[in-house]
Amino acid sequence: MASPIVPVLLAGGTGTRLWPVSRDALPKQFLPLMGKHSTYQETLLRVRGPEFGTPIVVTGPDFHFFARRQAEELGIDVTVVIEPMRRDSGAAIAAGAAITLKRDPQAVVLALAADHIVLDPEEFRKTCVAGRAAADLGRIVTFGIKPTEPKTSFGYILPGKAIDGTETAEVERFVEKPDLATAARYVQDGYLWNSGNFLFRADVLLGELQRLEPDMASAVEESVARSNTDLGFVRLDAEAFARSPQKSIDYAVMERTDRTAVVTGRFRWSDIGSWDALFDIAPTDSNGNVLQGPVTLMDAKNCVVHSENRLTTLIGVEDLVVVSVADATLVVPRARSQEVKDLVAKLKADKRPEAIVHRRVHRPWGYYESIDMGERFQVKRIVVLPGGMLSLQRHRHRSEHWIVVRGTAEVTIEKDIKPVHENESIYVPLGAIHRLANKGKIPLELIEVQTGSYLGEDDIERLEDVYSRV
Amino acid sequence: MASPIVPVLLAGGTGTRLWPVSRDALPKQFLPLMGKHSTYQETLLRVRGPEFGTPIVVTGPDFHFFARRQAEELGIDVTVVIEPMRRDSGAAIAAGAAITLKRDPQAVVLALAADHIVLDPEEFRKTCVAGRAAADLGRIVTFGIKPTEPKTSFGYILPGKAIDGTETAEVERFVEKPDLATAARYVQDGYLWNSGNFLFRADVLLGELQRLEPDMASAVEESVARSNTDLGFVRLDAEAFARSPQKSIDYAVMERTDRTAVVTGRFRWSDIGSWDALFDIAPTDSNGNVLQGPVTLMDAKNCVVHSENRLTTLIGVEDLVVVSVADATLVVPRARSQEVKDLVAKLKADKRPEAIVHRRVHRPWGYYESIDMGERFQVKRIVVLPGGMLSLQRHRHRSEHWIVVRGTAEVTIEKDIKPVHENESIYVPLGAIHRLANKGKIPLELIEVQTGSYLGEDDIERLEDVYSRV
Repeated sequence: MASPIVPVLLAGGTGTRLWPVSRDALPKQFLPLMGKHSTYQETLLRVRGPEFGTPIVVTGPDFHFFARRQAEELGIDVTVVIEPMRRDSGAAIAAGAAITLKRDPQAVVLALAADHIVLDPEEFRKTCVAGRAAADLGRIVTFGIKPTEPKTSFGYILPGKAIDGTETAEVERFVEKPDLATAARYVQDGYLWNSGNFLFRADVLLGELQRLEPDMASAVEESVARSNTDLGFVRLDAEAFARSPQKSIDYAVMERTDRTAVVTGRFRWSDIGSWDALFDIAPTDSNGNVLQGPVTLMDAKNCVVHSENRLTTLIGVEDLVVVSVADATLVVPRARSQEVKDLVAKLKADKRPEAIVHRRVHRPWGYYESIDMGERFQVKRIVVLPGGMLSLQRHRHRSEHWIVVRGTAEVTIEKDIKPVHENESIYVPLGAIHRLANKGKIPLELIEVQTGSYLGEDDIERLEDVYSRV
Repeated sequence: MASPIVPVLLAGGTGTRLWPVSRDALPKQFLPLMGKHSTYQETLLRVRGPEFGTPIVVTGPDFHFFARRQAEELGIDVTVVIEPMRRDSGAAIAAGAAITLKRDPQAVVLALAADHIVLDPEEFRKTCVAGRAAADLGRIVTFGIKPTEPKTSFGYILPGKAIDGTETAEVERFVEKPDLATAARYVQDGYLWNSGNFLFRADVLLGELQRLEPDMASAVEESVARSNTDLGFVRLDAEAFARSPQKSIDYAVMERTDRTAVVTGRFRWSDIGSWDALFDIAPTDSNGNVLQGPVTLMDAKNCVVHSENRLTTLIGVEDLVVVSVADATLVVPRARSQEVKDLVAKLKADKRPEAIVHRRVHRPWGYYESIDMGERFQVKRIVVLPGGMLSLQRHRHRSEHWIVVRGTAEVTIEKDIKPVHENESIYVPLGAIHRLANKGKIPLELIEVQTGSYLGEDDIERLEDVYSRV
C-alpha cells in the first residue's frame, strides 16, 4: 500500500475581506463561519483518515499557538511550521514539501488552503485518491472543481486529454478571473474552477522549483535546514526565508511546468472570498437569506445577516449584507461586498483598532476580553486554558482585583503562591510581582477589575514567561 | 404684569417608533436624540424664563423618578404628577390644568409634548407670548407651524380671520394626515402643521371639558382632589382616573369647541415620529447623511446612522436607516421607517426582551447594566447617585462581590455598616441581608460579580426601601 498523503495546510493568510469577523489579528481560517468549527478545523477533519498522514500546518508567528490549540481541540496531531514572514503560497508550499521530504523521500503532499469550505468531505477524499496515481507518476495535480454557475471570482482550468493509467487529465489552459460572458462560455466549454489545491510528490515539486525558481528553492531549503524547534513548533530560519521571492505557487511553478495534471472534484466548494460568497455554500431561509445568530426579519430577501451576541433586525431590504460583532457593524450591498477590503484599508488609515484586532484577544494561555471601561477602571473577562500560565509580571500604574467565576486559579503574589477557587477573590496591589496559572482540568474563568490612572496593555513588565515572550 | 404661563409637559408616552433607542422601559422623551440633553430636558429649557412658571410634568409610574432626576440635572424645579395609567392626552392635560387651577384661578397653561424638538427656542417663546392675549380672552390656542415642505405625517390647520386684539386667528379647519398631493395643496393654500401644543386658561379648558366630555372632566377632577403626595410626587387617585374615557385632547375638546384660535409658529419643529424625521431637524454631512456616534462611510448617501459605542460602517448604500445600540441593530430603508413599530410588535410577540427594556436599567437610586454573563456568573456595572440607596435585601441563590471603582460606598451586611472606598472590594455571602448606599457627593460606581446557580432579577427579597418598593 502507498504511504499516506501528507496534508500541508496553508494557514498563514490574513484576509480582511470578511471583516469585521475576520481581521489581521485572527483571520478567517481560525473562525467558525458556518457551524461550530473554524474553516481550519474543518480542513483538518477533511484530511483525517487512513489515506492521510500527520498534517503539516504552515502559519505565521501570530497564529502558531492558535493553530496547535484548534488541532488539539479535535484531538488531531499536527506539525506547526512558523513562517517568519509571508512569502506567498510558493514559499509556504515549498517549506511544507521540504520538511515532508526529509521524513520520507517518496512522500506525496496535498497542499491545501485552510480557509476554504467543502461541503462534501467524502467526495473530496475520493478526489485525492483519484489524483494520487498521477502524483506518484511525477505529476503536479491541481484540483479543478466542476462549476455550478459562471463565477467571475475564480480562475478557470481547461482539462485536456486523459493521462493514461490515472483519473486525471492534461491541463490545456489556466485562465484568470473572466467577465461574466466569458465565464458562461467557459462553463459551457467544460472548463473547471481552479481551487488552488495541489497534490504532488515532494521531490517533484522541489525539483521543478529548483529549475524554475532557484532563488526560492534555495532560500526555502536553507530556511528548513536551519530551522529550530521551539516549544514543539518548527520555526523556519528567518534570514534564509526572507530571501525567497514572494510568488504564488501558480506563478512560480504551475503556469510554467510541463508536469501539471488536473483531477476533477465534484464537491461543493467555496473560497469564501467575500460575504456574498456565503450564498455558494450556506443554507438559506425561504426568502433566500443566509442567517447566523439572533436575527429578526420583516420582508427581507436574499440578505446575508451575521449577528454575534446582539439582535440584528432588518425591515424591507434586499441583497444586503449586514454583519454585527462585539465592536463593529457592517452594512454593504451584496454586489459590492468585494469592497470590504477597501473599507478595512480606510479604517487602518484612520487608525481604528477595529480594523486589526478583535474585542477578544487570544494568547498562548487562553484569551481575554475587555467588557467594560471607565475613566479610571477597566473590567476584563479572562479565560486560562488547562495548563495555561500567564507571564510573571508587574504593572506600574494599576492594581487588579480577580474574582474567580469558574475553575481554580493558582495565584502568585510576590513570594506567596495560593489557590483561589470559584466565588473567591484576590487583590493584586500596584507594583506587586504576580502570576496567574490554571493547574486544573477545566478552563479557569475570572473577572479582572483594574483600577488606576493608566490602563494600557503596554503597562506590563514581563519577568518570566513559559511562551518565550520575555 | 400677567401671571406666568404654567407649562404642563406631557411626558408619559411610550413610543417605540424610534426603537431600538426608544423603548417602553425608557421612551424617547428621556433620551438624548440630538446633542447631550434629552428631548424632555430640551423642552424644560425651552420654557425657562420670566414668561413661565414652575413646570408640571405628567408622566407614568415607571418614569417619575427619571423625570425629576433629569430636571434636577438642569437645576430646574418641577412638579411631577404620576398618572396611574394612560388615558391619552385629554386626561393628562386636564389633570395638569386642574392642578394649576387649584393654585391660581386665573392660570394660563401651556400644554406641550415632551418628545418634540424645536430648533429655535427663542422663536418658540415669542409664539407663546403672541398667543397669550387670546388665551387670556378665553380662547384655546393651538400652535400651527409654518410648513417647510408638504409632510404627510402631520395633521394640518387652516387659519381663518384674525381675532381682534390678538396675534391669533380663528381655526377654519382641522384636517387629518393628508396624502402627498393634498399636502402640497395645503401648503400652497396657507395651512399650518398641527403641532399638538396648546395655550389656554385652565378654567376655560376645564369648563369646555365639563360641557363636552363630562365623564372625563369629573374623573380627572376627582383623581386630582383625591391625589396624594408621595416622596414629593403628586400621585393621582387611580380608581377615579381609571374612569376617564381614553381620548386625545383633539377629539375631546379641540375639534368640538368654538373657542379655538391658532397662533403661527415660525420655528423649526419636529415630532420625531420616525427615524426618517431626523432629516427635518438634524444637520447632515456633504452627502446628506445624518450621523451620530462612531461611523465610517464609503459612498453612502442620505442615510441616518445612529451608532452607540461600537463602530458602524456603511458601503454603497442610499436612503437607509442604520441604528446600532448595546443589544440590538436595526436596518430599514428611510421610506419604510414607519414600520419600526410593527417590528417592535413582532419582537414583543416573540418575547424578545430587547423590544421593551434596555441593557442599561434605570432605578430611583441610579442604574445598572449587565456587562457580561456566563453559565454561573454575571457581571454588572452599578452606578448609585449621590444620596441614592438600594433596598435592604437578600438573595437566595447568589453571592456578590463588589469592587468600588469610583466614589465611596456605604455597605450594610447583616449588622455591620462600613465604608468601601475606590479600589476596595467587599463580599456579600449568599443569604446575607445587605444594602448599598452612596452618602457621598459624587456618583458611586462599582463592579458587581454575581456567582450562583440562578441569577435572575427576581431573586431579590426586599426588606426595606426608601422608594416605597417593598
